[in-house]
Amino acid sequence: MKDFQGMPATFGGLALRLFQFLFAASALCIMATTNDFPSVTAFRYLVAAAGLQCLWSFSLAITDIYALLVRRSLQNCRLVTLFAVCDGITSTLTFAAACASAGITVLIDNDLGSCSRNHCTQFETATAMAFASWVLKSVPLVVCV
Amino acid sequence: MKDFQGMPATFGGLALRLFQFLFAASALCIMATTNDFPSVTAFRYLVAAAGLQCLWSFSLAITDIYALLVRRSLQNCRLVTLFAVCDGITSTLTFAAACASAGITVLIDNDLGSCSRNHCTQFETATAMAFASWVLKSVPLVVCV
Repeated sequence: MKDFQGMPATFGGLALRLFQFLFAASALCIMATTNDFPSVTAFRYLVAAAGLQCLWSFSLAITDIYALLVRRSLQNCRLVTLFAVCDGITSTLTFAAACASAGITVLIDNDLGSCSRNHCTQFETATAMAFASWVLKSVPLVVCV
Repeated sequence: MKDFQGMPATFGGLALRLFQFLFAASALCIMATTNDFPSVTAFRYLVAAAGLQCLWSFSLAITDIYALLVRRSLQNCRLVTLFAVCDGITSTLTFAAACASAGITVLIDNDLGSCSRNHCTQFETATAMAFASWVLKSVPLVVCV
């Protein structure tokens, strides 16, 4: 298996994981700073999905750092497939949460025009961060040839 | 390339395409029967995404029928890859629209409890149909071995 940057146990892969973690953590923190997010199910779901993604990305970043330090390859095909399946599940959950939140923020901002009574900026920033985290997950991490 | 049921130009593939088309068309028609869907951006987006998917699934169903009638194989690797990429784009759009609509319907139904003043049943049914269409698209159509 060739050593593509972006795969597990490469510096590219580690950078992707760290950025995913940072974006997901930002989404979580920004949403959690608003006091009215628990009143909307989609925002609660975004917080849960971003939390799950933080945990997953952080765990894989730690694994990558360990593998890089001890110069051990993680490019076993089964392991890479396992990472790909778990990545697929977490990224689908994050994307679904980001889409649902985007639907609500567009409703509040454009359709109802009631941004003055809501934390529109925070909701929109958290949604954008979740989308950014999903886009980074979609970078082809796994080339299992 | 082996002849898996579910690939283009097989009866399984044709059945999947027809069901995708039917679910997407149902989502489009059910949403269009409500008079207030244009007031919500996410519902307009659902109608657009379901319309695009109808067109794509119908075109591929016609191609499958033609290929089955003249007994011609469509299992050329490039053609299958093209179908897979276009399927990926349309299914992502449908999934995003379904998630955004689901966020809004949950907001109306659970969070605001204002189903009596809205067409909740139609909105929820259209969203479910869009999800069903996406699930059928995710059935592994392409095994390009």
